[in-house]
Amino acid sequence: MPFPDHLAAAFDEELAALRRTSATATSDELAPFAEASWYPVGAGGKRLRPLLVLATVEALGGDVAAALPAAVALEWIHTFSLVHDDLPALDDDDLRRGRPTTHLAYGEDVAILVGDGLLNGAYGHVVSRLRCPASRRAAVLAVLVEGVEEMIAGQYLDVRPPDVPDEAWLRRMCSLKTGALIRASVATGLALEAPPAATEAAYLAFGNELGLGFQIVDDVLDATGTDAALGKPAGSDAAHDKRTFVTVLGIDRARDLAVASAARCTELVAALPGRPEALAGIAERVFARDR
Amino acid sequence: MPFPDHLAAAFDEELAALRRTSATATSDELAPFAEASWYPVGAGGKRLRPLLVLATVEALGGDVAAALPAAVALEWIHTFSLVHDDLPALDDDDLRRGRPTTHLAYGEDVAILVGDGLLNGAYGHVVSRLRCPASRRAAVLAVLVEGVEEMIAGQYLDVRPPDVPDEAWLRRMCSLKTGALIRASVATGLALEAPPAATEAAYLAFGNELGLGFQIVDDVLDATGTDAALGKPAGSDAAHDKRTFVTVLGIDRARDLAVASAARCTELVAALPGRPEALAGIAERVFARDR
Repeated sequence: MPFPDHLAAAFDEELAALRRTSATATSDELAPFAEASWYPVGAGGKRLRPLLVLATVEALGGDVAAALPAAVALEWIHTFSLVHDDLPALDDDDLRRGRPTTHLAYGEDVAILVGDGLLNGAYGHVVSRLRCPASRRAAVLAVLVEGVEEMIAGQYLDVRPPDVPDEAWLRRMCSLKTGALIRASVATGLALEAPPAATEAAYLAFGNELGLGFQIVDDVLDATGTDAALGKPAGSDAAHDKRTFVTVLGIDRARDLAVASAARCTELVAALPGRPEALAGIAERVFARDR
Repeated sequence: MPFPDHLAAAFDEELAALRRTSATATSDELAPFAEASWYPVGAGGKRLRPLLVLATVEALGGDVAAALPAAVALEWIHTFSLVHDDLPALDDDDLRRGRPTTHLAYGEDVAILVGDGLLNGAYGHVVSRLRCPASRRAAVLAVLVEGVEEMIAGQYLDVRPPDVPDEAWLRRMCSLKTGALIRASVATGLALEAPPAATEAAYLAFGNELGLGFQIVDDVLDATGTDAALGKPAGSDAAHDKRTFVTVLGIDRARDLAVASAARCTELVAALPGRPEALAGIAERVFARDR
């Protein structure tokens, strides 16, 4: 399936418009903080999470344009997690999306505040910009709250791992740290469209598998890719003594798991009710990164 | 006016019940993170912000028990801001509410995640626990979003001050950094009760003045109090080269401003429609700290 370029274009336009509005609405005194807050959102990035929101809405026959504020919220939440995760006290990474990390560009103090502001701004965007019935907006908020809570729990497990992590622990940690927000992206689309329960379950199973597969591929790439291709330092996991599918299980087992997850995702997406072509295109690209 | 001990007791009971529920609902793996997240909420603290929510609701004849989840959200937001503000990259403080700060007790990485989780949990609490019409819940969320956004903006100004700060800048910075959340606490009560516009304006003017007065008194106490009395290091502002009402304007001018703000608060609270006795008691205690 082709990658949904029309959704990526719509999302990029939305972000660019928000950035222009922010530039004119900010006082001189706070303009440097607004600039620092936009910096990690960057011009690139895969935009996986917002595109999953929009592709889920499209698959269920919903209004993609109306879902844009929810997609923005997911990208800001993801960006908040990157900015804080890159801090010296956490992963201590220097490069992200091909540029110096926010704390290197603006200082550690400002990076902490930028992350806080992005998380808060994500909720603010849903509260003030998402036009939909109140019950659906409440459902979106509940999905975001749960996704962020799980993601933070996963980050905690990541920084306080057990002495001897096994594959079950790895799956649990990744299901929280990375899977939660990918699942929440699909779940946000579901909250907006409110399909029948069986449809919802099928989409969530897909989101779940994609979250796992994404992290396995990420771990493989960290061990085998280059800084330039990744836009962040390759080999960072081993250098930081992180517990990943590669460092714990070995590269061969990790590759096998990635192939199995790709196959399972293809199966799950093919069986989705509705018109899941865009979701299939996104999943294909997630796994193609590995080739 | 006497301090509203009945509201403080209701709030403490609510927090204790939530803490018990959290202890039984958390998996073994995440129990240490739940413990770290409760640690900065502590057993003490003035609980100024949640009490302002409850006192505003009481003043307007509303249901105090129903407002407890909103009060909890305000306290968690305040605690999130303290945990991040105390980090080495920001204020680098060792003592808070009479105990080692969260990053000293649990590590800087965990403290960052604890702060993130408290902010997220505050929104989660309002979304899942606040029982009220959807439009009022939406109004509460909008108040919180704005309060946090302003608070973060104030923290930014605090860490990136101009070369020569003047009194106007100080007032603006404090109105954001400290005032925003105190104003938001009163505004949360207003969002829940939705009084007429003139009543709302009178309450907001009071909240605004109280936020300013609170910060001036805090600055005076930092310069004149003891670690034990403050539950945090005295003289921290000067040691950290912070721009405060005392360090910029001098102790005499700061004391004069505190007295003027106390008088203005007394006037404003006396003129409030409704039954603002609890608010008056809270304001009295804020300014009595200085004596």
